[in-house]
Amino acid sequence: MSYSIEEVARALGARAFGATGITVDGVAEPADAGPGDLALAMKPDYADGLAQGRARAAVVWDGADWQAMGLEAALVVPRPRYVMSGLTRLLDPGQGWGGGIHPSAVVDPGAELAPDVSVGPLAVICAGARIGAGSVIGPQCFVGTDAVLGEGTFLREGVRIGARVRIGARFIAQPGAVVGGDGFSYVTPETSAVEQGRATLGDIEGTDAQSWARIHSLGGVTIGDDVELGTNCTIDRGTIRDTHVGDGTKIDNLVMIGHNVIIGRDCLLCGLVGIAGSTRIGNNVVLAGKTGVSDNIFIGDNVITGGGTIVLSNIPAGRMMLGYPAMRMETTVEVFKGFRRLKRLFDDVAGLKKTVTDLSQKR
Amino acid sequence: MSYSIEEVARALGARAFGATGITVDGVAEPADAGPGDLALAMKPDYADGLAQGRARAAVVWDGADWQAMGLEAALVVPRPRYVMSGLTRLLDPGQGWGGGIHPSAVVDPGAELAPDVSVGPLAVICAGARIGAGSVIGPQCFVGTDAVLGEGTFLREGVRIGARVRIGARFIAQPGAVVGGDGFSYVTPETSAVEQGRATLGDIEGTDAQSWARIHSLGGVTIGDDVELGTNCTIDRGTIRDTHVGDGTKIDNLVMIGHNVIIGRDCLLCGLVGIAGSTRIGNNVVLAGKTGVSDNIFIGDNVITGGGTIVLSNIPAGRMMLGYPAMRMETTVEVFKGFRRLKRLFDDVAGLKKTVTDLSQKR
Amino acid sequence: MSYSIEEVARALGARAFGATGITVDGVAEPADAGPGDLALAMKPDYADGLAQGRARAAVVWDGADWQAMGLEAALVVPRPRYVMSGLTRLLDPGQGWGGGIHPSAVVDPGAELAPDVSVGPLAVICAGARIGAGSVIGPQCFVGTDAVLGEGTFLREGVRIGARVRIGARFIAQPGAVVGGDGFSYVTPETSAVEQGRATLGDIEGTDAQSWARIHSLGGVTIGDDVELGTNCTIDRGTIRDTHVGDGTKIDNLVMIGHNVIIGRDCLLCGLVGIAGSTRIGNNVVLAGKTGVSDNIFIGDNVITGGGTIVLSNIPAGRMMLGYPAMRMETTVEVFKGFRRLKRLFDDVAGLKKTVTDLSQKR
Repeated sequence: MSYSIEEVARALGARAFGATGITVDGVAEPADAGPGDLALAMKPDYADGLAQGRARAAVVWDGADWQAMGLEAALVVPRPRYVMSGLTRLLDPGQGWGGGIHPSAVVDPGAELAPDVSVGPLAVICAGARIGAGSVIGPQCFVGTDAVLGEGTFLREGVRIGARVRIGARFIAQPGAVVGGDGFSYVTPETSAVEQGRATLGDIEGTDAQSWARIHSLGGVTIGDDVELGTNCTIDRGTIRDTHVGDGTKIDNLVMIGHNVIIGRDCLLCGLVGIAGSTRIGNNVVLAGKTGVSDNIFIGDNVITGGGTIVLSNIPAGRMMLGYPAMRMETTVEVFKGFRRLKRLFDDVAGLKKTVTDLSQKR
Repeated sequence: MSYSIEEVARALGARAFGATGITVDGVAEPADAGPGDLALAMKPDYADGLAQGRARAAVVWDGADWQAMGLEAALVVPRPRYVMSGLTRLLDPGQGWGGGIHPSAVVDPGAELAPDVSVGPLAVICAGARIGAGSVIGPQCFVGTDAVLGEGTFLREGVRIGARVRIGARFIAQPGAVVGGDGFSYVTPETSAVEQGRATLGDIEGTDAQSWARIHSLGGVTIGDDVELGTNCTIDRGTIRDTHVGDGTKIDNLVMIGHNVIIGRDCLLCGLVGIAGSTRIGNNVVLAGKTGVSDNIFIGDNVITGGGTIVLSNIPAGRMMLGYPAMRMETTVEVFKGFRRLKRLFDDVAGLKKTVTDLSQKR
Repeated sequence: MSYSIEEVARALGARAFGATGITVDGVAEPADAGPGDLALAMKPDYADGLAQGRARAAVVWDGADWQAMGLEAALVVPRPRYVMSGLTRLLDPGQGWGGGIHPSAVVDPGAELAPDVSVGPLAVICAGARIGAGSVIGPQCFVGTDAVLGEGTFLREGVRIGARVRIGARFIAQPGAVVGGDGFSYVTPETSAVEQGRATLGDIEGTDAQSWARIHSLGGVTIGDDVELGTNCTIDRGTIRDTHVGDGTKIDNLVMIGHNVIIGRDCLLCGLVGIAGSTRIGNNVVLAGKTGVSDNIFIGDNVITGGGTIVLSNIPAGRMMLGYPAMRMETTVEVFKGFRRLKRLFDDVAGLKKTVTDLSQKR
């Protein structure tokens, strides 16, 4: 698809200048831009790049002398970072998959697909599954028995949705994402070493061999509207009640959401985040990459963690956290500074002990 | 399936009271329970929930006045946590897949399947594979050349078992689990910077470019009986000998087991655990979520780690460990307390230095 | 395949002794070796193992008295660790898959495959994909629209290559690896709490609800020659420009490479490593298992990290790093030692304070 600068401006609520009839069919960094690309030069830093590239049109910073930079047309947008959303949506070339139901897909006659749903090659859709209007089920996907997918679902290749999972509208899942694996829940006939260890925090003495009996996952997974899942991430079903992900929450690659977890609205969970069983996460929570959260705890609304944070206990709303263990970010930043001076601290204390001993003896 | 309270009691070794002919076909938390559900109210805390829900029957705590709570029948069990295993097994609705070999599956004529094995749509089973009686191979699964799966195997959708992997009885694997990827093993023609760095722990000076030659994985993976694997987890094959997982061990989502690793019996490895190459893990070891274990080390029997623990050296049997680096849990708990007081400690030492200098000068 | 000891010696550039006509068809550890195996006994420690096993031939250490150890033939190699590469390549039994294009594969007529490419059962190859000579596309793989794979590509079962991804020669990918998922990139209409938090490092006050608008990934992924990917790892496409992985880089299981990341040549990224968006990694970098790297930073050439390292800021070339936060390895080793003595340090300072107060008062 190609668009005139005028059409782009209208779609984005931007102001357009110059030869607004010029068409573009892609976006590019200024130095890499060809004549059909809209260059992204939202900061004065990019002026040199524009000179290197061959863009005829660009999104520029407010007040830029775009003509002096050799452009024929320019766009100015109110919040440059935000405009990336509309612009990339407009120019996304998509996956190039055809429509309709591919003859190699295995769709159970007991599944209910809205008339315009497309199903890619070698996908499997089980009995009782219901898929809403405008949905795209990618190649090699799996949709389990009685699973429900809302309108406008988009599943990339190889996504797997387990039996009885229920998902709202406009769900997007990247390749290999899995919803509805069984929870990791086992129990020993007698009190286990883990239960004992959690009670005492002490070492394990004389434990006999013990084997683990499986607790089956009878709960499902319910997911709200406008949720996205990253590549190869996993969301387990609940034991009795459902695991839940709220509206608007976005989950990145290789994230693991345990059984019974409840996640609020509009959260961001970045790559390799892990949330252990039965933990509750509030709304608008942002967990940076590799954050881990213990089981059976609570994280309040608007909490933000930094990369690698390990959360071992509840966090009240609004906190900015970092570290292992998770502490307020300013505390952890102080601790990190302390690490670098720790050797000197030990040396100082050793020196002080000597001096004080001398002082004491001399008296 | 639905069961009378009397049947449930018999299956679980529980005591039943009241109208034991009432039937149930699911379990639910007390407040969510409908008339066909068996409510789970094993603690007095749940009494209020029972009043909110519509359960006619419940599992209650010993001594509960179940009639006063509006129930028509009740069950009392010896170890409530343990009974969850039998109860959820009894009432698991399963995946709803049909039996037999789906016509779209690609089963090599040289594979040997016990007569009652079922194979889901679009699964692939290679030549020489042998699959034991009562096994279910889910949709889109892959079983490689000469792989062996014992009796009662259950593979959820999209599980991949590599060539020559050998697995015991009653194996369960969640969607996307992979057994038998190649190990991550490379070598440089000359001594590599990593070898140099491991020897000196110092920075790397003047290293020339070096490229990595692949060491192929000729070993396989052997897995004992009653092992379970989580969604999208990975177990690599060994270099020369086999990677091994012992009987009864359970492995959670997104866990990574490196080449040549040997894991004992009845271990639990929680979500996002990583075990690097050639490490040995004893029996009854429990590694909490996000635990990482270095290569070529040893973890003794009954060791338990807390969430996020990074194990850089051997751990003797029976230890309860936490932290980065892994230390005894009580030591790490002290260290974590110290972090919160570290700034004050620096301030105290600075104050002391000043006071002591003054004292010294005044003498 | 079986080889005579003489053939093995020639292939590896090794010196052969004794009955070099003996043939072997596998390698084994000394104690496990059968008569058809070449035992690996590169260190004197293995002498006892040889006595236990039944090997007729072995790779031995330089100067070994192989006849006294009961061997009929022996090989001596210059760098034993390096010879593993050639030896395991020679004796790799492979996956046992047939050649040609399996009739169940769905290959779009608009895809261009070199004549000798093999495609496994139930693989999908989309329109415009181009696959180089000598490539093997495994069972259930996916190759997206206009994706390019170089000569000698080898994809294990279930690998997924997204639309427009371009990969060089001799690429190897383990089961379930995914290249070309969308990047994790969202933006709020107003300044988000994350932007605010990053600016102040302080807690979040009175944040209103905010929802996330998707930034589509228009960039692709480009991968050089001789790159390998581990099981279930993920590499996301770029936002505007491509995510890039340089020649010779090897990436392990469950590694996550974010959008716009640029990785140099000949790096090793071990299991469960995560690299956040737009970060640049130099050449010959080795990141140990579970290393995490923040977004938008830079890691210089030849950097090595230890297991579990969390990198929050730039690292100059040649550094050996460890810890959370990443510091020079020797610093972190000192800090780790300090942790074990931290409680005593607090006690010492408390004692000093008391003594110094007494001294001050007594003056």
